[in-house]
Amino acid sequence: MMLYGDYVKSKSLPKKEDFGEWYNEILSVAEITDVRYPIKGLCVWHPFGFALRNKVYAILKSLLDADHQEALFPLLVPENEFMKEAEHIKGFENEVYWVTKGGTTPLEVPLALRPTSETAIYPMFKLWIRSHVDLPLRIYQIVNTFRYETKHTRPLIRLREITSFKEAHTAHTTWDDAENQVREAMQIYSEFYRRLAVPHVITKRPQWDKFPGADYTMAVDTLMPDGKTLQIGTIHHLGTNFAKTFDIQYEDVNGEQQHVHQTCYGISERCIAAVIAVHGDDGGLVLPPEVAPTQVVIIPILFGKGLQHGKEILHVCKHVREMLVDVGFRVVLDDSDERPGAKYYKWEMKGVPLRIEVGPRDLKEKMVTLVRRDTSEKEPISQSELVEAIWQKLEEIHANLYERARKSFDARIVDCKTLDETKIAIKKGIARVNWCGGEECGMKMEDAVDADMLGELAKTKKGKCPICNKESDKVVLMARAY
Amino acid sequence: MMLYGDYVKSKSLPKKEDFGEWYNEILSVAEITDVRYPIKGLCVWHPFGFALRNKVYAILKSLLDADHQEALFPLLVPENEFMKEAEHIKGFENEVYWVTKGGTTPLEVPLALRPTSETAIYPMFKLWIRSHVDLPLRIYQIVNTFRYETKHTRPLIRLREITSFKEAHTAHTTWDDAENQVREAMQIYSEFYRRLAVPHVITKRPQWDKFPGADYTMAVDTLMPDGKTLQIGTIHHLGTNFAKTFDIQYEDVNGEQQHVHQTCYGISERCIAAVIAVHGDDGGLVLPPEVAPTQVVIIPILFGKGLQHGKEILHVCKHVREMLVDVGFRVVLDDSDERPGAKYYKWEMKGVPLRIEVGPRDLKEKMVTLVRRDTSEKEPISQSELVEAIWQKLEEIHANLYERARKSFDARIVDCKTLDETKIAIKKGIARVNWCGGEECGMKMEDAVDADMLGELAKTKKGKCPICNKESDKVVLMARAY
Repeated sequence: MMLYGDYVKSKSLPKKEDFGEWYNEILSVAEITDVRYPIKGLCVWHPFGFALRNKVYAILKSLLDADHQEALFPLLVPENEFMKEAEHIKGFENEVYWVTKGGTTPLEVPLALRPTSETAIYPMFKLWIRSHVDLPLRIYQIVNTFRYETKHTRPLIRLREITSFKEAHTAHTTWDDAENQVREAMQIYSEFYRRLAVPHVITKRPQWDKFPGADYTMAVDTLMPDGKTLQIGTIHHLGTNFAKTFDIQYEDVNGEQQHVHQTCYGISERCIAAVIAVHGDDGGLVLPPEVAPTQVVIIPILFGKGLQHGKEILHVCKHVREMLVDVGFRVVLDDSDERPGAKYYKWEMKGVPLRIEVGPRDLKEKMVTLVRRDTSEKEPISQSELVEAIWQKLEEIHANLYERARKSFDARIVDCKTLDETKIAIKKGIARVNWCGGEECGMKMEDAVDADMLGELAKTKKGKCPICNKESDKVVLMARAY
Repeated sequence: MMLYGDYVKSKSLPKKEDFGEWYNEILSVAEITDVRYPIKGLCVWHPFGFALRNKVYAILKSLLDADHQEALFPLLVPENEFMKEAEHIKGFENEVYWVTKGGTTPLEVPLALRPTSETAIYPMFKLWIRSHVDLPLRIYQIVNTFRYETKHTRPLIRLREITSFKEAHTAHTTWDDAENQVREAMQIYSEFYRRLAVPHVITKRPQWDKFPGADYTMAVDTLMPDGKTLQIGTIHHLGTNFAKTFDIQYEDVNGEQQHVHQTCYGISERCIAAVIAVHGDDGGLVLPPEVAPTQVVIIPILFGKGLQHGKEILHVCKHVREMLVDVGFRVVLDDSDERPGAKYYKWEMKGVPLRIEVGPRDLKEKMVTLVRRDTSEKEPISQSELVEAIWQKLEEIHANLYERARKSFDARIVDCKTLDETKIAIKKGIARVNWCGGEECGMKMEDAVDADMLGELAKTKKGKCPICNKESDKVVLMARAY
């Protein structure tokens, strides 16, 4: 079966420096998502893209499974439950899709498509949690959620159906326990993005940008090639706000009823957007080996050498494939009729970390040629040492992807003392600035540089707020955000 | 973390012969699903139930992955696409949930929540399929789908949100190729249910009960303990019906445009209902080892033997756990403070296939006691032979579950010659009857015995239609169906 063969050949990729165009094109040429679905803002996952998505979410699941339990809650939330938490509904009311008809009958109670699941999950927490021995409770689910976006939509980044929202919800006996959970979630998300070789920074969002209904919000951001930041994860300390609204209480050791303290934290398919945008290049995707649907492609070099040679080369290719599959690598042997150059192009576009070429010369010497996607380095390897070499190369590729992404990331975070310096820094990335902590100064700063305050760093440094000139040790990041 | 501990203890299970009550209770007591969600007909999956669900769907996925590709299509279908196929919409119009509002704004085009995804997928097939080299195309997805059910709902069986609908969609160059795909799907589904030890029968549904828009429908049915059948899979030959509606054409080898021939086939979480209903007993779940979230539970027998003994026993338990986890079994060591009897009850309820007891006597002799969930057989096993013994027992348990379920299934399919015989047979199961093939006779037969014609068997046998007395070799199954 050759999926979309002609479709791919008819496309070419813009340079990555034209990031907006490159991003939209690569999603279609590399067969990640298809935007041609007849509703704006909804995307179809191609099989290749969905295989990548599954590999990425397998990492996330394995990290959570250590002390969370996966469950599944309904998509539809009755209006009365949805409307219970005042701040929460204010934050979402313009973005909610409403189901109002079943068959040809109007529904008595309109049903919201979850934009996030607090209001679906917490009525159940009320039923499930009885006593302090039921706590901590740590649940997660991976689901589709919906936002009626009025802003410009963008595949994997801003969608009306978020197809792969991983949301965790936890309940604890004390505010401090919940805060510890926030820290654990930060560690889980850092480890997740380390595995994806995606550099990131975690800050405390300013109060005016926190999750509706939260005590505070921590956010994970990465930098896109155009200098704008992408929020790729958020972690919320909910305090007892939802517990009070949904009446979630437990009996403490003294027999007293107490409200639980809660957290929730989420990651969407933006994590895939980050992998694509951070690592890709003019030739297409460059995928970290752990999540590449195909890790090694084998290409026979058959041209002009006669039938006997061709057979022997294919024989070696098949032998190599078997050897690699046996040890658990994800391998494709491309023995289609296309020319080697066309195959290189295709598999580079798909970001396959390693290419093995087997040609007439390799036959005699029992060698193959190994080519890295990230550096284009070619190296002859003897067939007997191939498995070991591939293990090593894949590790090196991950390390190299992370290293070069981090260098680029770090180079684009600039210490700034004035609004003018800040304005320059945010053209290419993130400005690190002091801030007095006053909401008014924060808002003024956002306006003055036409960017967002991502949030406050844990690490402090003495300096002056560029708006009011007060001394402060609070350091915040400013950037233009997606 | 002790989830729902008190909740479980406060419940007890009705006898399985009161199947309706038993079924509803076991789902809550064994922590499969929770019906207390504030919308009727929507269920929450408990973590334990969802772990079972994931194991079951992992089998289905692995069977499909051999020559299908997983993709993902949007939930929302615009009204105009949904309304294109006349028969299809007639079949679903009373069951569709409609989204009519985004935020506070009425939508220009109402959006259907997919009841099934033909109308979401086939506009994309039209874009993806160009040439005969793109065929066959075999795609599947596992998604939530929605039916505005007006009938009585029942967890996992008849729901307004089907949370886990696996639907496959294929396209082929000829009608015969599509028919071969129908056969392949039948084999895949048979193998799937063999792995779940669920006996089943596949018939061709009568024309008046086929999928709206299909040429014909094959269906997989199993028998529930109350004698009613449960449809646990359907396979549809769509011919060119949808291809014509959605204009899905390919260029054949002669350069001519042709409509593709299509099939689709689906399985919902009813497969979990079947596993629970077919194998469970008065003590709770009995799970086939391959899908049991916990395959082995280890229980230390500590009572009244003093601290030193206790320590040694726990030490052995931990050693055994490590040994079993190392070879890949899913193991829980229950070292909680509850009494052994309470633990037996709990883990039997959860259907864990094997229990290992380690008591004072076992210490000296380096033995443990192995107890089977399906037969309650106890057997002392030396610790050194334990791994091998468990492999063997788990295989025996699967074989025994399948064997006894098949015996019960076969015993409840009865050859009938008259309507009176049929009426008796369908009280406990399925009647096998001749049928002339006439729609009028079929309908009359359904009315006369107050049951459904499941469909026609592939195997023929001479006999008389009990309505018109005509000789025929067509054999059909009649039953009361869920």
